[in-house]
Amino acid sequence: MIKVGVNGYGTIGRRVADAVKKQKDMELVGVTAVHPHYKYALARDKGIDLYALDMKSLEAFNGAGYTLKGTLNDLLHRVDVVVDAGPDDTGPANLKVYSQAKVKSVFNGGAGDDMQIPSFVAQCNYEAAAGKDAVKVVSCNTTGLCRTIDAIDGAIGVAKARAVLARRATDPDDVKKGPIDSVVLDPTTLPSHHGPDVQTVLPHINIVTMAFKVPTTHMHLHSLILSLKKPATRDDVVKALQGARRMTLVDGKSGFKSTSNVMDWAREKGRDRNDVYEATVWRDSVTVVDDEAYMFLGVHQEAIVVPEDVDAIRAIAGGYTRDESMKLTDESLGISHR
Amino acid sequence: MIKVGVNGYGTIGRRVADAVKKQKDMELVGVTAVHPHYKYALARDKGIDLYALDMKSLEAFNGAGYTLKGTLNDLLHRVDVVVDAGPDDTGPANLKVYSQAKVKSVFNGGAGDDMQIPSFVAQCNYEAAAGKDAVKVVSCNTTGLCRTIDAIDGAIGVAKARAVLARRATDPDDVKKGPIDSVVLDPTTLPSHHGPDVQTVLPHINIVTMAFKVPTTHMHLHSLILSLKKPATRDDVVKALQGARRMTLVDGKSGFKSTSNVMDWAREKGRDRNDVYEATVWRDSVTVVDDEAYMFLGVHQEAIVVPEDVDAIRAIAGGYTRDESMKLTDESLGISHR
Repeated sequence: MIKVGVNGYGTIGRRVADAVKKQKDMELVGVTAVHPHYKYALARDKGIDLYALDMKSLEAFNGAGYTLKGTLNDLLHRVDVVVDAGPDDTGPANLKVYSQAKVKSVFNGGAGDDMQIPSFVAQCNYEAAAGKDAVKVVSCNTTGLCRTIDAIDGAIGVAKARAVLARRATDPDDVKKGPIDSVVLDPTTLPSHHGPDVQTVLPHINIVTMAFKVPTTHMHLHSLILSLKKPATRDDVVKALQGARRMTLVDGKSGFKSTSNVMDWAREKGRDRNDVYEATVWRDSVTVVDDEAYMFLGVHQEAIVVPEDVDAIRAIAGGYTRDESMKLTDESLGISHR
Repeated sequence: MIKVGVNGYGTIGRRVADAVKKQKDMELVGVTAVHPHYKYALARDKGIDLYALDMKSLEAFNGAGYTLKGTLNDLLHRVDVVVDAGPDDTGPANLKVYSQAKVKSVFNGGAGDDMQIPSFVAQCNYEAAAGKDAVKVVSCNTTGLCRTIDAIDGAIGVAKARAVLARRATDPDDVKKGPIDSVVLDPTTLPSHHGPDVQTVLPHINIVTMAFKVPTTHMHLHSLILSLKKPATRDDVVKALQGARRMTLVDGKSGFKSTSNVMDWAREKGRDRNDVYEATVWRDSVTVVDDEAYMFLGVHQEAIVVPEDVDAIRAIAGGYTRDESMKLTDESLGISHR
């Protein structure tokens, strides 16, 4: 039994906590809480133990109707692995805390770049985490790109990848950020960080990415152009994508005309929080012109990394192969592989 | 003096009518009107003669405080050239009407594809209109792509163009269309119509386009990837763009972080209707990797074709070279060329 704590209970932390609870080989010891909020009340109500982030948080919960089990330090003493899903750029400081407590750690995309720990996408480099004290699950977009490019690279070979990312502006529960009625170049210069991030997982891939934000809250949309290493048909490309776990193929003619339709599919399917864990490729967009494969790829920013976090826990804890872990994770989350 | 009528007084027709009024060698005889609406009241108030589209329209204006000068047929008898800016797909039927009236005609992008008339972008193929009875000014996106690709093709050579179009969903005055909070693949298959449309102007360009709609009302944003025919630096590409009229270069570090900033610039500059006639390239996005040039290109969907319509009138009426016409048009609209 791998004892797991989750530090940070926002978009990713909440989902990872629930996913950990679904693993037969894991125990969710608890999650950290900052100050009274409905998300902690919901966690408490479903039996998740709460630990104050620090003394200030402990005080903030005083008299608010919560029973805290201690602080982060107490949580760290009771777990084998901590998943860090804290605010952006808090990773380096937190890594020190976890190291001192001798707890293995799984970080997430926004944690920061200065930690010198391996990037992680289960499909691509599960083994890189073996024996490590810490790994970083890459960001949602990088995860989607890695799964997709790796699937085609493995089957056909990718000489060069170019991706244009239309990024959802913010998450549905965030009412502070924009834009409204504007497309924001993010950044105006090239490449966006996603290309270099992909190379931390797939260092041999030549990739250039450009990105901008659009006024939506659900799913990033990538337009992918991949130069192939050998001649291939669109069927070859579709087959390569179907060969990977955690890819799903949808069709415009079946009603998937937009990112909203993919989210609607997940709601109808009864997924927790209508989460789409799979990288979603529009099958009818897959087109080969000359030696280049084109496709649209959707990434549910809140959910795609959740199975990766679960696998990363197993990968650094040890005891499972990549395929064993991915299978356990996928079965627990309702990700079906053709 | 070229006598001009405008049939269709929506987004494009209104702008072309005002632009025609600014030409010293043209006379705006009148525009057609469908039924009472503030846009016709504004036209009337600035002295533009109105002609009912048909007998039904004539009746609709009865007692509404407008003085109509007749119907479309009357207008056609009084002009040398008619600019057709009517609803989508009405082109083929209208072309017959204009031909019967022996009036030369300039159509716009959405008119329809079955007319067998030359496509027109002044910079690229002004001469193709000489001696013709009708031409079609291509759509806003195709115009932006043609200007940009042609500029680089002329200076350096373009072996292959790939464009990802993030399309504004609809115009600011259209309250009926979506999407809200969604990205709609438009279409889910490749290529979008823009690639083939570019080839009606630049038949030698190998181009693939993919497009989707985002919830904005101002400007399309293109992500362009151009394979160059010979080695070039980013400065070479910037210089090529600067060499073309009707291109403008903006920088993120000067405050142009988004499509909204470009529109704001036009408002502050005092442009009529805050129109951006130029194809707008983010200079700091221009990047050359291997033999490929990358850049972001903004297209103000309401305005970019307006100078093209004015030039198309001169091109089919005859008497001017490309450079003479473009210079007259640009000076009248406040388009400055470095």
